[in-house]
Amino acid sequence: MITLLTDFGTTDYFVPAVKSVIHSLCPQVAMVDLTHDIEAQDVLGAAFTLAACYQSFPAGTIHLAVVDPGVGSDRRGIVVEAKRQYFVGPDNGIFSFVYAREKSCRVFELTQKEFFRQPVSPTFHGRDVFAPIAAWLAKGITPEAVGVEIFDPVTLHSPVPEQKENGCVGQIIHIDHFGNCITNLTLAELAYHSITPRTRLHLAGQSIQRFGTHFSEAPDSDELQAYLGSAGYWEIALWQNSAARTLEVRRGDVISLQY
Amino acid sequence: MITLLTDFGTTDYFVPAVKSVIHSLCPQVAMVDLTHDIEAQDVLGAAFTLAACYQSFPAGTIHLAVVDPGVGSDRRGIVVEAKRQYFVGPDNGIFSFVYAREKSCRVFELTQKEFFRQPVSPTFHGRDVFAPIAAWLAKGITPEAVGVEIFDPVTLHSPVPEQKENGCVGQIIHIDHFGNCITNLTLAELAYHSITPRTRLHLAGQSIQRFGTHFSEAPDSDELQAYLGSAGYWEIALWQNSAARTLEVRRGDVISLQY
Amino acid sequence: MITLLTDFGTTDYFVPAVKSVIHSLCPQVAMVDLTHDIEAQDVLGAAFTLAACYQSFPAGTIHLAVVDPGVGSDRRGIVVEAKRQYFVGPDNGIFSFVYAREKSCRVFELTQKEFFRQPVSPTFHGRDVFAPIAAWLAKGITPEAVGVEIFDPVTLHSPVPEQKENGCVGQIIHIDHFGNCITNLTLAELAYHSITPRTRLHLAGQSIQRFGTHFSEAPDSDELQAYLGSAGYWEIALWQNSAARTLEVRRGDVISLQY
Repeated sequence: MITLLTDFGTTDYFVPAVKSVIHSLCPQVAMVDLTHDIEAQDVLGAAFTLAACYQSFPAGTIHLAVVDPGVGSDRRGIVVEAKRQYFVGPDNGIFSFVYAREKSCRVFELTQKEFFRQPVSPTFHGRDVFAPIAAWLAKGITPEAVGVEIFDPVTLHSPVPEQKENGCVGQIIHIDHFGNCITNLTLAELAYHSITPRTRLHLAGQSIQRFGTHFSEAPDSDELQAYLGSAGYWEIALWQNSAARTLEVRRGDVISLQY
Repeated sequence: MITLLTDFGTTDYFVPAVKSVIHSLCPQVAMVDLTHDIEAQDVLGAAFTLAACYQSFPAGTIHLAVVDPGVGSDRRGIVVEAKRQYFVGPDNGIFSFVYAREKSCRVFELTQKEFFRQPVSPTFHGRDVFAPIAAWLAKGITPEAVGVEIFDPVTLHSPVPEQKENGCVGQIIHIDHFGNCITNLTLAELAYHSITPRTRLHLAGQSIQRFGTHFSEAPDSDELQAYLGSAGYWEIALWQNSAARTLEVRRGDVISLQY
Repeated sequence: MITLLTDFGTTDYFVPAVKSVIHSLCPQVAMVDLTHDIEAQDVLGAAFTLAACYQSFPAGTIHLAVVDPGVGSDRRGIVVEAKRQYFVGPDNGIFSFVYAREKSCRVFELTQKEFFRQPVSPTFHGRDVFAPIAAWLAKGITPEAVGVEIFDPVTLHSPVPEQKENGCVGQIIHIDHFGNCITNLTLAELAYHSITPRTRLHLAGQSIQRFGTHFSEAPDSDELQAYLGSAGYWEIALWQNSAARTLEVRRGDVISLQY
């Protein structure tokens, strides 16, 4: 299976052009869209979305991730081998979370141009470089055959919660489709058994003291609620409402935890 | 084939996570998106969309429908067997139109947790409960094997036209992508052969007296037109314009028919 | 493979209804969405999007293109055979760019109603006429079997650059998802080797003198840049910004080239 993650949107011919190249080279491979609605050139957003779901894909999956403001420049194209999956895209940090989570990652710079689609458009490596490489990997070619191993891939600073005396300070790393605010706090920062009546989260001037496991525990309430989301991070939500819009929270905003 | 109908949107990892689980269990099954753009937590809207198209799918199709404000609570998960198709989702009324249309429906509560993906996230049954059940049904497991038959599924009130002395009163049940206003009036309320020069529809203070069979019968006109839509309901449209926006009509608004 | 290009949007049951018909008739065929977000009834926009990508699809591909304001009227349905691909849709000019580019095109009016889905809804030929024809072509039926050759397909005026004494005058024919402004100027109007320090493009009161090959040549700059896009047309872009929004450019606006 090949997954596709881009900032191409779904109104243009960009995504189907990528798919046509893959299908031409490897007609039998299944293609699944992760999303094409990453904000234009938001590499960190793409990195988060990929991190939130690659682990549920089976071994052998090839993830094609193209958010690529540097297309056509001398930034490298790479393939990453980790967790028995492959990741193909530009070397701009889009796989940073994969590097952080997977102990044995190998990264290869794409150097073998005979696998590219010719001529290579300097503005559309998604179609002409990354799509054919993904298709060749699906056909069984190894990363060693398409590139040269490198040991200095570009890695984005991914925000880590900062420990304080009586708690820690984290960030909002994503706002989802429902307006839930996903933090970078995990069970390592706040386990369910360590929650006490005095535990608080502070976000956008509000204090959150309701900790639950799912949305509908606070039905018909306008009280903010924290729960551990399906990506493994604590999230802030409002029952049938957008917490992000109500609180005017944006990605990067600070959230502090008080034990 | 498995179809997918959710309110997950297409900007997050939710839909591909569901697909990854299905593909892992049953790589050969085809997946078709109905839509993921149902308004957040709009169970009735999802029920209508499903009702408008499930009948054109072939026998053996499995419809996965997840608009699920009660996820994680004690609301039941179910599989419905009807018209030689399966419907998998929460027991919150999302299959109400199927119950209303299909004479022999059987409904099973999902009780056999060994078919679920473990651990089950309390906020993402789409991925951990319903996706694996859909995949197992695609692999040939029967509803009896994954659950226990029940006879009291939750059913939403689906609005039925009300007969009056010289006509009837219906509702707008959907606004489509083109701004056409879909009513709950069918050929039972108004057959083509019973239309007379005095037949009128009244909607949002406007009187509609043009009854046709397709959009382009009133080209370059700003006259409202009624025609029998492809889902079997009378619809109100404007030539190359949004009737809903022009009339400021919303779902639930009243439309009255005068013979 | 069957591709799908419509103005149906992705919020309704229209697209999956089309797919269900294709899958019922030809379960093994792969379906790829080009886009369903063409502006409602924008035949020219659909024609451009199809033109920009059909050439990267393999021989045997069937393109189903339904932007069809005349549905239900007496406008013809057609299948076009060109470049060892098929194109199925209404005869309203949606295949104009294919006619212009491919020397040997054959066009057939769909006359054999036994291949249609019955009953044919007068408002949904996408599902009832074009989808089954596409599926039958995928199954190996020939265009001759489903229709009668015609020699007068509807062709839209596609804007051609106009030569002037010291340059030429073109148009913006598309605004893409990133806000890049795609012109109808190609290498025929402006080759890289003929660019001099005095070459200029004039658009929306601005003068463009930076000609490059890719986006990131002018990083951190707010200078407009022209480059040859992946569809073969000169495009106007701004680094990490929407040129169209900044310049308030719309499709149809004039751009002039001065050698």
